[in-house]
Amino acid sequence: MTVTYSSKVANATFFGFHRLLLRWKGSIYKLLYREFIVFATLYTAISVLYRFFLTGRQKRLFEKLSIYCDKYAEQIPVTFVLGFYVTLVVNRWWNQFVNLPWPDRLMLLISSCVQGRDEYGRLLRRTLMRYVNLTSLLIFRSVSTAVYKRFPTMDHVVGAGFMTKYERKLFDDLKSPHLKYWVPFVWFGNLASKARKEGRIRDSVDLQTLMNEMNKFRSWCSLLFGYDWVGIPLVYTQVVTLAVYTFFFACLIGRQFLDTDQGYQGHDLDLYIPIFTLLQFFFYAGWLKVAEQLINPFGEDDDDFETNWCIDRNLQVSLLAVDEMHMNLPKMEKDIYWN
Amino acid sequence: MTVTYSSKVANATFFGFHRLLLRWKGSIYKLLYREFIVFATLYTAISVLYRFFLTGRQKRLFEKLSIYCDKYAEQIPVTFVLGFYVTLVVNRWWNQFVNLPWPDRLMLLISSCVQGRDEYGRLLRRTLMRYVNLTSLLIFRSVSTAVYKRFPTMDHVVGAGFMTKYERKLFDDLKSPHLKYWVPFVWFGNLASKARKEGRIRDSVDLQTLMNEMNKFRSWCSLLFGYDWVGIPLVYTQVVTLAVYTFFFACLIGRQFLDTDQGYQGHDLDLYIPIFTLLQFFFYAGWLKVAEQLINPFGEDDDDFETNWCIDRNLQVSLLAVDEMHMNLPKMEKDIYWN
Amino acid sequence: MTVTYSSKVANATFFGFHRLLLRWKGSIYKLLYREFIVFATLYTAISVLYRFFLTGRQKRLFEKLSIYCDKYAEQIPVTFVLGFYVTLVVNRWWNQFVNLPWPDRLMLLISSCVQGRDEYGRLLRRTLMRYVNLTSLLIFRSVSTAVYKRFPTMDHVVGAGFMTKYERKLFDDLKSPHLKYWVPFVWFGNLASKARKEGRIRDSVDLQTLMNEMNKFRSWCSLLFGYDWVGIPLVYTQVVTLAVYTFFFACLIGRQFLDTDQGYQGHDLDLYIPIFTLLQFFFYAGWLKVAEQLINPFGEDDDDFETNWCIDRNLQVSLLAVDEMHMNLPKMEKDIYWN
Amino acid sequence: MTVTYSSKVANATFFGFHRLLLRWKGSIYKLLYREFIVFATLYTAISVLYRFFLTGRQKRLFEKLSIYCDKYAEQIPVTFVLGFYVTLVVNRWWNQFVNLPWPDRLMLLISSCVQGRDEYGRLLRRTLMRYVNLTSLLIFRSVSTAVYKRFPTMDHVVGAGFMTKYERKLFDDLKSPHLKYWVPFVWFGNLASKARKEGRIRDSVDLQTLMNEMNKFRSWCSLLFGYDWVGIPLVYTQVVTLAVYTFFFACLIGRQFLDTDQGYQGHDLDLYIPIFTLLQFFFYAGWLKVAEQLINPFGEDDDDFETNWCIDRNLQVSLLAVDEMHMNLPKMEKDIYWN
Amino acid sequence: MTVTYSSKVANATFFGFHRLLLRWKGSIYKLLYREFIVFATLYTAISVLYRFFLTGRQKRLFEKLSIYCDKYAEQIPVTFVLGFYVTLVVNRWWNQFVNLPWPDRLMLLISSCVQGRDEYGRLLRRTLMRYVNLTSLLIFRSVSTAVYKRFPTMDHVVGAGFMTKYERKLFDDLKSPHLKYWVPFVWFGNLASKARKEGRIRDSVDLQTLMNEMNKFRSWCSLLFGYDWVGIPLVYTQVVTLAVYTFFFACLIGRQFLDTDQGYQGHDLDLYIPIFTLLQFFFYAGWLKVAEQLINPFGEDDDDFETNWCIDRNLQVSLLAVDEMHMNLPKMEKDIYWN
Repeated sequence: MTVTYSSKVANATFFGFHRLLLRWKGSIYKLLYREFIVFATLYTAISVLYRFFLTGRQKRLFEKLSIYCDKYAEQIPVTFVLGFYVTLVVNRWWNQFVNLPWPDRLMLLISSCVQGRDEYGRLLRRTLMRYVNLTSLLIFRSVSTAVYKRFPTMDHVVGAGFMTKYERKLFDDLKSPHLKYWVPFVWFGNLASKARKEGRIRDSVDLQTLMNEMNKFRSWCSLLFGYDWVGIPLVYTQVVTLAVYTFFFACLIGRQFLDTDQGYQGHDLDLYIPIFTLLQFFFYAGWLKVAEQLINPFGEDDDDFETNWCIDRNLQVSLLAVDEMHMNLPKMEKDIYWN
Repeated sequence: MTVTYSSKVANATFFGFHRLLLRWKGSIYKLLYREFIVFATLYTAISVLYRFFLTGRQKRLFEKLSIYCDKYAEQIPVTFVLGFYVTLVVNRWWNQFVNLPWPDRLMLLISSCVQGRDEYGRLLRRTLMRYVNLTSLLIFRSVSTAVYKRFPTMDHVVGAGFMTKYERKLFDDLKSPHLKYWVPFVWFGNLASKARKEGRIRDSVDLQTLMNEMNKFRSWCSLLFGYDWVGIPLVYTQVVTLAVYTFFFACLIGRQFLDTDQGYQGHDLDLYIPIFTLLQFFFYAGWLKVAEQLINPFGEDDDDFETNWCIDRNLQVSLLAVDEMHMNLPKMEKDIYWN
Repeated sequence: MTVTYSSKVANATFFGFHRLLLRWKGSIYKLLYREFIVFATLYTAISVLYRFFLTGRQKRLFEKLSIYCDKYAEQIPVTFVLGFYVTLVVNRWWNQFVNLPWPDRLMLLISSCVQGRDEYGRLLRRTLMRYVNLTSLLIFRSVSTAVYKRFPTMDHVVGAGFMTKYERKLFDDLKSPHLKYWVPFVWFGNLASKARKEGRIRDSVDLQTLMNEMNKFRSWCSLLFGYDWVGIPLVYTQVVTLAVYTFFFACLIGRQFLDTDQGYQGHDLDLYIPIFTLLQFFFYAGWLKVAEQLINPFGEDDDDFETNWCIDRNLQVSLLAVDEMHMNLPKMEKDIYWN
Repeated sequence: MTVTYSSKVANATFFGFHRLLLRWKGSIYKLLYREFIVFATLYTAISVLYRFFLTGRQKRLFEKLSIYCDKYAEQIPVTFVLGFYVTLVVNRWWNQFVNLPWPDRLMLLISSCVQGRDEYGRLLRRTLMRYVNLTSLLIFRSVSTAVYKRFPTMDHVVGAGFMTKYERKLFDDLKSPHLKYWVPFVWFGNLASKARKEGRIRDSVDLQTLMNEMNKFRSWCSLLFGYDWVGIPLVYTQVVTLAVYTFFFACLIGRQFLDTDQGYQGHDLDLYIPIFTLLQFFFYAGWLKVAEQLINPFGEDDDDFETNWCIDRNLQVSLLAVDEMHMNLPKMEKDIYWN
Repeated sequence: MTVTYSSKVANATFFGFHRLLLRWKGSIYKLLYREFIVFATLYTAISVLYRFFLTGRQKRLFEKLSIYCDKYAEQIPVTFVLGFYVTLVVNRWWNQFVNLPWPDRLMLLISSCVQGRDEYGRLLRRTLMRYVNLTSLLIFRSVSTAVYKRFPTMDHVVGAGFMTKYERKLFDDLKSPHLKYWVPFVWFGNLASKARKEGRIRDSVDLQTLMNEMNKFRSWCSLLFGYDWVGIPLVYTQVVTLAVYTFFFACLIGRQFLDTDQGYQGHDLDLYIPIFTLLQFFFYAGWLKVAEQLINPFGEDDDDFETNWCIDRNLQVSLLAVDEMHMNLPKMEKDIYWN
C-alpha cells in the first residue's frame, strides 16, 4: 500500500522532518536493515581479522591496501550517477501514476449520454462500462505482479464478473499471435455505434465525444504497457548498481581504523565504530533503494500502487454511476445565497 | 498566505536581492530561528566543555575526534542530494498550483450556453455551478488541513450552502466503500443532459463542450488528490533528511576551534564564533526548509496555497457570473477608434 | 525592451561569442558595474588597511583570518545552488513568455465566423475583440509595473478606449471582493451567445470554437497571474542570495595577497589586483543577476517583456483584422505554378 | 529485441538489484567485453614494459609521466559531461518510443464509424487501414536499419501486401523530388471524404474525428522522422566521446603501479591488477554505451525497438479489428452484479 | 545542412563512437581548428618567451605567476556553468525544430474537405494552400538569415509565386506599424468562410476543423518568431563565455611546463606539449561551440535547419496534394490477406 505522509508535513515546523525519521512502514530502515546487517558484519569481520589475527607484516600490507581503497572510494562518482539515475526513475514512476487508467471520465459521459432507464438502456450502459474495466484489467494483468497473482487465468477474469462466458468464447476465437487487450475496445466502439443507430446515443457529437474519451483511456493503457515493456536500459541500471556496490566494497577495507601508532595521515583516532561510513551506507544504499522501489511500481512493496484496490474501486464506482445514478437527480432547490 | 514579492524584484537594481534578505514574513529567519538557536546552543555547549572542563588528555582526544568529524563532514554530498531533491519537490509543488481547480472556464460556458432568464433557468445554472464548487470542496477537504479544519463534517458543507439537505441524503444513500467526490459530477452530467432534452441547452455541441470542460475540471481534482495520495517516497525524504542532519551533527564537533598551540593544520586561529559554519547552517537547513514548506502546499505555512480563500472566491464569483450577469450585457457602443 | 542578439549568432564563427562580450545594452557590465565598484573598493580598502595601517602582530592575525576565510570560501557550494536555482528561474521566465495572451487566434476566428459587413456586424466583432483586449489589459495591470504606471486607474483604461463608460459602470456595479478581470469574458460569452441567436454566428459549432478559444485565452491570462501571485518561495531566493553574498564576503578577506615573506602556502606572489577573484565576481554575481532579471519579466529591465508595446499592438492589429479586413479578400488568381 | 526486466524488480528485496548484475543478454558485460579486453591488454603491455624492459632512467621518466597523467585524469570532468549527455539521449530515446505510430486509435474509429458489412464496406475499411499501415512502413523504412533490410525496395512493400500494384504505379507517377511518405494519407483523406459522400461515413462529425486521428498519426510519423533526421549535434557526441577516451588514455599510464621503493606519494602498494581502474572503466564506458545504444533505437541492438515486429502486429491486428470484428458483437447479457 | 549520422550509430558496436571521431563535416575539428591554432600559438609563444628570453629573476616570477594561475584555473566552475547552459540551449533548439511549421496537416484537410474538381475548386484549394505557405515564408524571412538572403524584399516573394501582385497591393495598403505576417491568415479564414457559404466546404464542422488546424499552424509560426525575438538573456551567454575564456586565459600561463630543477610540486616533468590542456581545450571550447551552433539554428552552419529547402518542399508538396491528387484515388482492390 502506498505510504502517505503528506498530512504529517502539512506545516513546516521545528525540525519538521525529524518525525519522518522515526517511522518504520515504508522507511529506509525497513528496506535496508538486512543489507545493513550484512555490511556491518563484514566490516566487523575484517576489523577483527586485522586487529587480532594478522601478523605485523600482514598488518602493514593491509594498512597500505586500506589507504589505497580509501583513496579510490572517494573517486567513485556515486553521488552523480545516482542523482541522474534516480531523477530518471522518479520521473518514470510519476508518469506511470499519472497514466493509471481511471474510468471516471468515461463513466460520467456514459451516464449522461446513453439514454434510457429501461432494462435495455441499463444493459447498454453497464456493458459499455464493463468493457472499459475489462481492458484495464487485462493491462494490469500484464504489468502488475499483484494483479496477475489474483487473476492467473482468464477463468478468474470471467469468474470475477469482468467478462461473460460468451464474450470469452468470442475473445478466444480471435486468431492473433499478439496481445488482445484492445479487443474489448473494438466491442465498445461497435456497441456505441450500434446504440447511435438505435437512438440510444442521440447524435454523432455525443458518440464521438465517447469515442475520443475511450481513445484517451486506451492511450493510458498502452502507455502503461509501454512503461512495463520498455524499461530503463539494463546497462544503465547495471552501471549504477556496480558503482554503488564497488563503493561499498572499497569502504569495507578503506574505512577501517588503522593502528594509530603507525602514524598514517588521518588515522590517529580509533573509534571502532565507523559512524560516518555507516551513515553513508544509509544515504547511498537508501538512494539506490528509492530507485529499486520505484522502477516497477506495480509490485507488492510498501510504496507500490494498489492496483488490486483500483480494479475493485473502478468496477464498483463505475457501475454505480452509470446504472443506479443514471437520471437519479436530487430535486433542485434554491441555494442559500439565492438573491 | 502566499508570500508575494515579485513586485519587489520587478527591476534588477543595485544589489537588487538584498532587500529580500531583510524580510521576516515567509523568510528563512522566521522558519529557521528555532533550529538555529538549538544548533548554536549545542555548539556553544561543546565549545565550553572542550575549553574549560576537559583535562589535557581528553582535549587531545577531542581534537582528534574533531578533525575526524571535519574530514567526513566534507564528504557528505549534501549539496547534490538537496539539489536533486528540492528540484523534484519544487516541480511537484508548481504542478499542484497549476492544477488547482478553478471553475472559471465552466462558469463562462454555463453563463453563455444554458438558456433562460426565468427562475428555472437561474436555478439550473446555479445548481450546475454549485455541483462544480461542491466537488472541489470535497477534494480540498481531503488534501488540505486548513479546509478540513473549517469543514470537519458534511454538516458544515451543507451549512455553508454547498449542498442542500436533500442532496446530502442522496449522497449518503449511495453505498460505496470508496471516496464519493465524483458524485456531484454524475449529477452535473445528468442534469446537463436533462437540460439538453428540455431545450435549455441548445444542442449536443453545446452539451459536449460543457461535458468536456467538466471532465477537465475533474482531472484537476483527481490530480490534486493524486499528489496528496502518492507523495514522494518516504525513503527519499528520509535519505535527504538523514544526510543533512548527519552533516550538522558532524559540524557540531568538527567545526570547533581547536587549541591553536597544538599546531593542527588549519587550526591556527580561534574566532570563537564559527561564522561560516553558521552561514552553512542557513544554506543547507534553509534549502531543506524549502522542501519542507513545499512538500505539502495545503497546510498553514506562510507560503502555502490559500485554499479557504479559493473556495469562497470560487463560489461567490461563479454564482455571480452564471446568475446576475447572465445576458446582462452592456449596451454596445462604437469604440473611440471607430473608423 | 528585450535585447535580441540572435542574428548576431546565426553562424558559429571564429571565436563567435566574443562579439557578444563587447555589447553594453543588456550586458553583464551594465548590470553589474555598480556592484563591481563597491566590491573593488572594499577589497582595496582592506588591502590598504592590511598593507599600511596594521602593526606586525595585527598583520599576522589578519593573515590567519584571511587563510581561514579562503578555506571556507571554497566550501560554499555557490555553483550548484546557483545552477539549480537559475534553471528554475529560466524555466518559469520562458513559460511566462509562452503564455503571454496574444489575441491573434481569436481575431482570426471572429473575423471569419461572425457574419455581416453592416454596422451591427462591425460593432459586434469590434466589441468582442475589445473585450478580449480589455481582459489582457486588466491582467497586465496586475502583473506588470510598467503597465500599471501607464494605467494607474480604471479611468485611464476607459480613456484609452479599452472600455466604454457604460461598461465601466456595469463593471463597478458588480459586487465582489475579488479581482474582476474575468468580467469581460462573461460579457464575451453572453454576447457571442446572443449573436448566435440572432444568426450572426451561424451555428453551435462556430460558437463553441469561439468559446474554446476564449477559454484558452483566459487560461493564459490566469496562468500569467498565477506566476505573479505565487512566486518562487522567498526562502529559496534568500538561500541563494545568502550563499552568494557570503561567498563574496569571504573572498574580500580570503583573497587578499598576503606578505610573501611569511611563506604561507600559495602566497608567494603579490599581484595587487586579484584578477581571478574579480572575474569570479563577474561569473557568480552575473549568474545571480540573470535570476534577478528574469524572476519578474514584467518590470522595466533591458531584458523584460515589452508589455506596453504588446497592448498597443494587440488592440491595433485585432481591430484591423476583424473590421477592415473582414471579407475584404484579394481577388483569386491562378498562381504561377498553375499546371 | 527489447530487454525487459521489470518483472524481476517488481519488489525491492534483499540486495535487490544484484540479480540484475548476473544477466548476460543486453548487459554491460556483453556490450563491453571487447573494449574491456583491449583496455586490459594495453594496460598489461604498458605494465610489463615498465617493469621488465625499461632501464632505471627510463623508469624514473615513466614514473613522472604516470604521476602527471594521473593528476590530469582526475581533472577531466567525465562524470558531468556524461551525466548531462546521457540525460539528453535518454529523453530523446523515450520520446521516440512514445511517438511510435500505433494504428490502434484509428482502427477503433474506422471499425465503428465506417458502415456496411457488405463487400464494399469491408473493402473501404481494409483499404483505409492499409493506407495507415503503409505510411508507417514508409517511415520505418527511412529510420530503421532493420526494416530497411527487410524491405529494401518498393517491390518488397508491394509483395508484402501493404500496397497494390495499381497504387504503386500512381505513387511512382507523382513527380516530386521530395520524400513521399505523406501520399497514402492524401489517399486516406480523399477516400474518407468519398465515403462520407456515399453515406458510408454518416456525417462530418464522424469524418472529422477520423481526420483528426489521422493527423495525430501523421504527427507521430513525422516526429519519428525528425528524430532520425536531426540528431544530437555531432559536436556534442564528439566532445563526450573525446572526454571519455582521453580519460581512459590517461588512466592507461597514470594508473600504473609504480615502484614502491621510490616512495612516490600514494604509490606504496603494488597490487598488479588495478581493480578500481577496471571498475571505473565499467562505469564510464558503460555509461557511454547506454548513450550509444539509445542514440538510434531503430538498429539491431539487444535493447532496440522491434520495429519489424511492430509492422507485422499492426497490420494483422488492424485488419482483424476493422474487418472480422466489425459489428461482430458478443450478445449482451446481464453481468453478475446486476441489482 | 543538417549533419545526419544516426545510421552510423544504429548498432552499438566495438568502440562504436570512434568512427564519429573521424568525420570532418559538422565536426568539432572543423568548428574549432582556427581557435585551436590561436590557442596553441599563444601557448607556444609564452613558452618560448619563458624558456629563452626571460632572465633568471623573471623566470622565478613567471613561475610563481604560473602556479597562481593554475590554482585558480581549477576553481573556475566551467563544467557546471556549461552543463546547465548547454542543456538550456539544446532544449530550446529542439523545441524550435519541433515547432517548424509544416503544412502537411492542413494540406490533407484541404485536399479532402474543400470540394470541386472544377477550376474554381482548384483555385480555392491552391489559394488557401498558398496563404499557408506565404505565412511561413514571412516568418522564416524574419528568423532565418539564409531565407532573408534569398528573399530580401517583398518583390522576391511575389516573384517566387508565393503572393500575387494584387495580394501584395492589399498587403501594403494595410496600415499597421507592426509586423503583418498574420495577414494571409485573415485571408485564409475569410476565404474558408466564403467557401463554406458557397457550399465548397460542406458544413461548420469541416470549416472549424480547418480553422483549428490553421490556428495550430499560426501557433508554430509565432512560437518560432518568439524564440527568435526573446533569446536566452544576453547576460547568461556572457557569463558562460567569460567563464570559458577566463579558464583558457588562465591555462595559457598556468599550464606551462616550469623548470623541473626548481622543484615545484607537480612540475618535475617537461613534456613541451601540454597534451591534456589541449584536449581540455577541445572539450570545453567544443561544448561552448555546441551552444554557439544551436543558439540560432536558422543560420548557415553545417548543423543548422535547412529552411530554404523546407520552403521549396512545402510549396511543391502542398500544391501537389491539394490539386493534382484531389479525389485522384487509386482503384480499390482486395488486398492479399482478404479472407
